Parts: sequence; structure tokens; C-alpha cells
Amino acid sequence: MTRKIIIDTDPGIDDAMAIMLAFNAPSLDVLGLTTTFGNVPVSLATSNALKLVELAQKNVPVAEGVATPLSAPQLPHPDFVHGKDGFGNIDWPAETTKADGRSAARFIVDTVRANPNEVTLIALGPLGNLAKALELDPEIVNLVDEVILMGGAAVEPGNVTPVAEANIINDPHAADIVFTADWPVTMVGLDVTHKVMMDEALLQKIRAADTKAGELLYQSTQFYFDFYNKTFGINGCFVHDASTIVYAMAPEVFTTEPGIVRVATEGVAIGQTIIAHPDKHYPLPHWQDKPQSKICMGVDSERLLAIIEATFTDAA
Amino acid sequence: MTRKIIIDTDPGIDDAMAIMLAFNAPSLDVLGLTTTFGNVPVSLATSNALKLVELAQKNVPVAEGVATPLSAPQLPHPDFVHGKDGFGNIDWPAETTKADGRSAARFIVDTVRANPNEVTLIALGPLGNLAKALELDPEIVNLVDEVILMGGAAVEPGNVTPVAEANIINDPHAADIVFTADWPVTMVGLDVTHKVMMDEALLQKIRAADTKAGELLYQSTQFYFDFYNKTFGINGCFVHDASTIVYAMAPEVFTTEPGIVRVATEGVAIGQTIIAHPDKHYPLPHWQDKPQSKICMGVDSERLLAIIEATFTDAA
Repeated sequence: MTRKIIIDTDPGIDDAMAIMLAFNAPSLDVLGLTTTFGNVPVSLATSNALKLVELAQKNVPVAEGVATPLSAPQLPHPDFVHGKDGFGNIDWPAETTKADGRSAARFIVDTVRANPNEVTLIALGPLGNLAKALELDPEIVNLVDEVILMGGAAVEPGNVTPVAEANIINDPHAADIVFTADWPVTMVGLDVTHKVMMDEALLQKIRAADTKAGELLYQSTQFYFDFYNKTFGINGCFVHDASTIVYAMAPEVFTTEPGIVRVATEGVAIGQTIIAHPDKHYPLPHWQDKPQSKICMGVDSERLLAIIEATFTDAA
Repeated sequence: MTRKIIIDTDPGIDDAMAIMLAFNAPSLDVLGLTTTFGNVPVSLATSNALKLVELAQKNVPVAEGVATPLSAPQLPHPDFVHGKDGFGNIDWPAETTKADGRSAARFIVDTVRANPNEVTLIALGPLGNLAKALELDPEIVNLVDEVILMGGAAVEPGNVTPVAEANIINDPHAADIVFTADWPVTMVGLDVTHKVMMDEALLQKIRAADTKAGELLYQSTQFYFDFYNKTFGINGCFVHDASTIVYAMAPEVFTTEPGIVRVATEGVAIGQTIIAHPDKHYPLPHWQDKPQSKICMGVDSERLLAIIEATFTDAA
């Protein structure tokens, strides 16, 4: 049994790793990539997604999505993390294929409608495309198998402000729409991704194993490692996006807790995921009658990294 | 050497315990009580403060302060926690004395001006009076010895919403003014007060030792214990306000961390204290060029409770 997925993405160095992992995973069937602004502008995200599909020699459509947040002010693209090209300034050849003519939101709706209750949406960037898809066809909440998103933080501090994680603060209104829609959402946030660290040794194994994409992943991740080394003084990088793909492959590697998630859309807390325990009652109404999400709180990091290694190695 | 203090307060059962503790502490010289809405309406807070002063046979003025938040919507007074009378519905006799004619803010400014660099403000309720005092005379930031406030939460969950503590959410705009003014603020929040629990045995010792106030403290705290028992299933109560008085007496019982505090004044995060590490830089400007506060993060609960017991017992 394979699991049908759409990856909503802003490649992005760790997005590239995540997408290649998904292409190599026998348990996953990638129906399409949809792109969003985030790590890079959306047009570059689309180019990069096409490059990855070409490199993997896959027949997978890429549909371009939103270029800006729904209503929050746009933050600068973090080229100090991902390079001006989104791949760590490696001057990779341009793509030769073209994107699907449909918008990301339309592609999501069409694909979910064509595969009722079978599609999992994996979101690795800001959540505008998912919010637009909900607006286009609210009934998809009953037709999507699961929404697995990389973003947010329950008890871990944020990585953009003391409380806000990058994907969520890049479009807090969209995130609040996605968390409060009545579909099954799993949050893979900093609480777990800050516990998973990729090092040079694993990167070298991926380079050696994946003859198709290994060189791109290796070169681009060097830039990412440099950023982590300069910023945090660590050798390696956190595995945000690829961990989220592993959740789709092997959820048992994670522990989750139920929670009702609201996103702060303004003021000093903008971009924070504020999580209420489902059994607690508060005098303010924000968490009342809202759906529960699954919040990833624990992860077996060693097993997760072994799954990444095995997926690249076995596929070689 | 005694320490001159003004207690800004909304009595309130645990405020009563804190005020009596301060009256009994040889190291503290209570120059006045200022009252605010919070646990009860401000007029009742003033009556209760006068009752406590009379009971302690102290010559200490009580100045009435703000009745409402600066701009946030007013929350209901929690009579399920403190009773309709603020003392656990014990029908205590009415006060026979009157409040000072000055507003709380004016009293604070006058007293600080009369005792430059000697007065510590201890705030046990919402922070409107301190914000009004800053507005009345901004120069007091250089004349106050320390502001010690019970409120907020750094990593501990809130007690009104998942992220908001009661005193702060009762007037978030005032709290943000107090935390961003350039005076030395120490935050005694839920991170420490949720680690300090008073039980029936200690309450009985206080009742036996303090012939003046013991009966009021004993009777009112029974109601408070009932609330804690029904709500949290615990025998006893957290020591929010009295812990804050102990900080003024013996700061070495606590460990603190430096932090730049901003308060969320709107949306789902309203009332949250969001704390930035002074050495971290963020792309959003909210924590830039703001003063550092001291955040209480650890407490020796056993020593703190021993100080409370000894203060009541030795004074008897």
C-alpha cells in the first residue's frame, strides 16, 4: 500500500532533501508538487521544484501557488539560509520543463476530488495554498486523508521570534485557517525538528547512494551547514522538512499529543501557535468548538535518521 | 536596614496573606497600600485593604486606584476563586477608617519623590496604577528602587488562557507599559509560584501564631483551598502573592534569568508575556532597544515556606 501525497513546498535546501526523500520512498506516491513563496519567491520555488522533478526523472506535475501572505506583511526571503537560488548558490542548470497550468489551490482540489479520502497534503512552507484550496472547495475537509505540516512550536521557542516559527509567521492568517478547518491536521513543529540533526557523515552517505540527486543535495546542504555553523555553532543542520516526510512514512517514530491550535495573527505574538489542551476550559472563546490537531512532541531521532539513510540507500 | 515598599493590590485572599506577611516582616517597611480592580472591583479592594490595615493596627495609608483596564475589555471578577467579598465569603466586619484622598498613581508618585531611590513597588494585581504613575511622572523610572510584580509566565502555561496569567491579561496594555519602562522590573510569575504550595498544616500554624490576622487568613484561605481542590484536585493552594513578598525579603531564595518582556495586547495571545533573550536578535523590532527585566525561573520552595512560617511565628 502506498500513500498518495501532494507536497506543498518552497524549495529551499531542506525542501529539496524532503522532496527527494519522498521520491525515493516506496511507501509514498507523490501525485504532485505545489509551490509557495517562503524560503524563496514563488517563481523560484516553482523553478526549483521542476529541477527536482527532472533530476528524479519523475512524471509529477508542479503547480504554482501564492506569491504573498493572505494579509500579514511579507517578511524578507531568508537568502542567508537558502542562498539566492534557494539551493545554496550552486548555479544548478535551469529547468527545461514547465509548470502545470493550474494554480496550486486548484491542483489540490482537483487531485483530492479525483482521489477521495486517499490524498495526504504535506505542507513544508507557509500555508497560503492550503487556505486557498479550502476557500475554493470547503468540502475537501471531508475528502483529505490527513494534513501533515512542518511548522509551529508548542513549548519549544520560535526560530524567527521568541514564539514564532518561520513557516507560520510567513502567513499567520493562512495557518490559523488551516488549523481551525475541520480536517485531520498533524503538526510537525520545532518541538520535534529541533531534536533531529543531520551531520556531514549522513550527507556523504546520501551523496554516495543517490546518483540522481545526491550531488545537488550535497552541494546545497553545505551552504545550509555553513549557516547553522555560523548561527548556532553546530556541525550539521536541523531536519525540519525531511522529518515531516518521515512522519508520513512512519508516524510511529513520533509521539503526539492532542491540542487545539490557534495562530496569533497580530502584535508581538504574530506567528505563534497557541495550543489548548482539549479538556481545559478558558474564559476566552478562542479555542471553543475548534477541531483537535495532533501535535508532535517527541521523536526517536536515531530511528528517523536511519529511515532517511535507508530510503536513499535502498533506492540506489 | 528595612526596605521601604508600596504594595499595589486587589485583595483577594492571597493578597491578604501577602499583606499580612509584609506587615509582620521586620525587614520591610510598608509605606502604603494602593488598590486596583482585579480579584474584586476596586472599591471592594479598597475596603479590604483598610480592613487589613485596621486588623494589623498599622498606621499605613490606603490609596484607591484604577477601576478598569486601560483599553482591553474588562474580564469578570473571579468570585469563584476569592468569594463575593474577596475574602472567601466570611462576612468580616466593615472597615471603620477611610482611604487616602489621593489616587493610587498620585500616592505612588508622591511617596517615591519623598523617598528617592528607596521605594520598591510590589504589584500583586493588574498593573494599571503603575502605568498611570509612569504617565503622571515619567521621571520616577529613575527614582524607584525596584518593581517586583506577581504576574506573567515565561515557559509555564497560563492560568486564564494557555498562555496568559490572570494579572497580566486583566490589563495587558498597562503590563506592556510597565515592562518596557526603563526601571528595574523583577517578574515573579507562574514559573515560580506554581512551584510553591501552601497546605493546611502551614495555614494552621499561621492561624495559631498571628493572633491579629490569623483568623481572617485561616477562614478566607479555606475558601481558596476549596477552589484549588475542586479545580486542580490538590490539597492546598499555590502561593502567588506571598511568594512575591518573600522575593522582596529574600531574593536569594529565587534564581532569575535576564529577559526582555513584551506583552501581547490583542488576539488569541492577549495577556501573554513574551520574553526574548537579551543576546538574541530577531527580524521583528518588538524587543529591540527595550530594557531587560529579571525573570524568576527557579525557587527553593521549602526555604520560601519556612520564611513565611518564621515571619508569622517570630512576630507573634
